[in-house]
Amino acid sequence: MAAGGGRFLSFEGIDGAGKSTQLRLLAGALAAEGRAVVTTREPGGSPGAEEIRRLLVEGEGGRWSAETEVLLFTAARRDHLERTILPALARGAVVLTDRFADSTRVYQGAARPDLAAEVERLHAAFIGREPDLTFLIDMDPAVALARGLARGGAEQRFEGRGAGFQAALRAGFRTLAAAHPRRIRLIDGARPAAAVAAEVLAITREALA
Amino acid sequence: MAAGGGRFLSFEGIDGAGKSTQLRLLAGALAAEGRAVVTTREPGGSPGAEEIRRLLVEGEGGRWSAETEVLLFTAARRDHLERTILPALARGAVVLTDRFADSTRVYQGAARPDLAAEVERLHAAFIGREPDLTFLIDMDPAVALARGLARGGAEQRFEGRGAGFQAALRAGFRTLAAAHPRRIRLIDGARPAAAVAAEVLAITREALA
Repeated sequence: MAAGGGRFLSFEGIDGAGKSTQLRLLAGALAAEGRAVVTTREPGGSPGAEEIRRLLVEGEGGRWSAETEVLLFTAARRDHLERTILPALARGAVVLTDRFADSTRVYQGAARPDLAAEVERLHAAFIGREPDLTFLIDMDPAVALARGLARGGAEQRFEGRGAGFQAALRAGFRTLAAAHPRRIRLIDGARPAAAVAAEVLAITREALA
Repeated sequence: MAAGGGRFLSFEGIDGAGKSTQLRLLAGALAAEGRAVVTTREPGGSPGAEEIRRLLVEGEGGRWSAETEVLLFTAARRDHLERTILPALARGAVVLTDRFADSTRVYQGAARPDLAAEVERLHAAFIGREPDLTFLIDMDPAVALARGLARGGAEQRFEGRGAGFQAALRAGFRTLAAAHPRRIRLIDGARPAAAVAAEVLAITREALA
């Protein structure tokens, strides 16, 4: 890794696309090379942010308005950044996070496009940091659903928000990647996991060189 | 009360000035006149906001940065507004809240004046509502502390943040009242509670007429 602090990488994509698997495989490959690696996730990733996560993911749907939710996500992200990400980067670690601000942009953009400007403003005021590199693990929602069904447990999660919503999320992620081609790398997640992992590792090595 | 919905009143001031006592006395007097009254408080005041309150008030000091705290307070206030205050006003009730946005302005203004502009921007974007009338129960912190000591339990709360901080809070509330003389009424809280209550009730009757 280049001198002068760590690197911050995020994995993004729809549920079932393989983000978490790819994050784990990359973390293992980097650790095997002797790099200091910190893996984390959102919402959550620090003790305080995990408590905010519980408020966000537990309880009934519609428990919070979209506005309150955006504030809670931003509060959790700020704590995650302060307590986990920035200290790890200062120690020179490679930080791999399962979701970051792009997820908020895309999910809120699909559900409440009228809040998009406010989401960006909160990000600029309270976060002000993007990953050095983002892997968008891209996959057709129908394929992601089929794979999830094969693993079990994914059906409800998908059906809860509808196939149209998943398609809107995928489109949102792809639009974001097209707008930030240097930071966000579009990765075809429909290939075997080992092939995806090899591409992710190659891009990461180049970025860390 | 005038036709066309309820009225929204807040009580503000330093700890120990008698806000909560005066709120209770006013609620009783209005209810005795047959008015629909809803009493509430911040942080909290709705089921979701009370859960956020627990994150804010439990645990060690320094658990959250000032930035995260401002986001959590605003999230709690948004939920309180949506779920408790606005529905009660729509039913025509008089809503009395123990603290509202002025407390955030004054506490954050004393602790982190550099965040003042951001606090106002969050308020404008996510709350956008002021009380129709605010009672600032004003008292010398030394008097408030002495009264609290007589009641028991207040010493630690005061000493935890220091007499200088309490004096800064009082000054902050007074400055805010001077800037908004129509909305915020400065009430001398050092008199007997019944005398304070009589003034608060007289002002309220006039406002509700």
